[in-house]
Amino acid sequence: MPHISLGNDQPGIRSLFMYRPETAYPMSMLVEILLRGPSTLTPGERELIAAYVSSRNDCSYCTSAHAAFAAAQLPQGMALVDQVRADPQDAPVTPKLAALLRIAGAVQQSGKDVRSEDVELARKEGATDLEIHDTVLIAATFCMFNRYVDGLATTVRPDPAAYAAAAHGIVNDGYLAVLGQYAEVTQDA
Amino acid sequence: MPHISLGNDQPGIRSLFMYRPETAYPMSMLVEILLRGPSTLTPGERELIAAYVSSRNDCSYCTSAHAAFAAAQLPQGMALVDQVRADPQDAPVTPKLAALLRIAGAVQQSGKDVRSEDVELARKEGATDLEIHDTVLIAATFCMFNRYVDGLATTVRPDPAAYAAAAHGIVNDGYLAVLGQYAEVTQDA
Repeated sequence: MPHISLGNDQPGIRSLFMYRPETAYPMSMLVEILLRGPSTLTPGERELIAAYVSSRNDCSYCTSAHAAFAAAQLPQGMALVDQVRADPQDAPVTPKLAALLRIAGAVQQSGKDVRSEDVELARKEGATDLEIHDTVLIAATFCMFNRYVDGLATTVRPDPAAYAAAAHGIVNDGYLAVLGQYAEVTQDA
Repeated sequence: MPHISLGNDQPGIRSLFMYRPETAYPMSMLVEILLRGPSTLTPGERELIAAYVSSRNDCSYCTSAHAAFAAAQLPQGMALVDQVRADPQDAPVTPKLAALLRIAGAVQQSGKDVRSEDVELARKEGATDLEIHDTVLIAATFCMFNRYVDGLATTVRPDPAAYAAAAHGIVNDGYLAVLGQYAEVTQDA
């Protein structure tokens, strides 16, 4: 049960976005730009970083959601997501993505844990400065979302298949479109 | 030296906001709403939470900045900020703020570290659900900012007094106005 009365029975971040639409808007805009905006990293690769960080933060809702969103946008699907969650350095990803996942894993612990050698390796494997930047910010952003979702003890989805269904909405319409759905749910309630 | 080439010599978050204005905008909007928007917590109290979390994350730039912003908006000034950083439960703050700082300290570690007892105590000391919510989100947000600033190894300000000077701009004009200043700096460069 959530720590505070959220006034709705939505799961995870959805319940918080409905409770506090003022902050939901910039948070959704940030994640839309980072995970779906113009980038030389694919949306699937970026969702994989989000799922990996959420998994390391042990945030069940965010891990399930972004694992589903990554799987829906990667040719290798959930099998790859599971391999990355288990050990990104042993997973069948490009050397560049492996190096970026190493940086994301460091950020999950602390910004200070990112070493110059990690950044040099990513660059050597072909990562651009902007890709390194966005990897750090995606990892940092999910350290925020994970703490927000778990810090208020929001609920997970009762049906695991619901995350895969939600992936269709994200892939087709994006993160900002979801805010409109909340408004409809509020009106219906 | 920053891990990537940021194309400017600004310190901390300023260098990152100039490098990536697309993400700077929603991040600034989020912090403006949380720290300066309508709230039953004063801006000084909210900056104190930001400074406390940044201090626990050992983020030198964010701690110095938000300590200065808090001090500028609290009657007890920097003396109180220093006492809260040392031990919020022993600092001369209201029991409600002490309880909220306890929650913020838990979030800094992990969302899962927030216990029902912590929330009950805050409520018993007079905290509203929205104050508890915003405390969790402020703490989570600074876990993002701290990781972003340190994860890319941005520089601190060479002159510590510069943080106090920056406080005037934040107190008078807010976080979104700063983005306009960056645009001017870029044009001047």
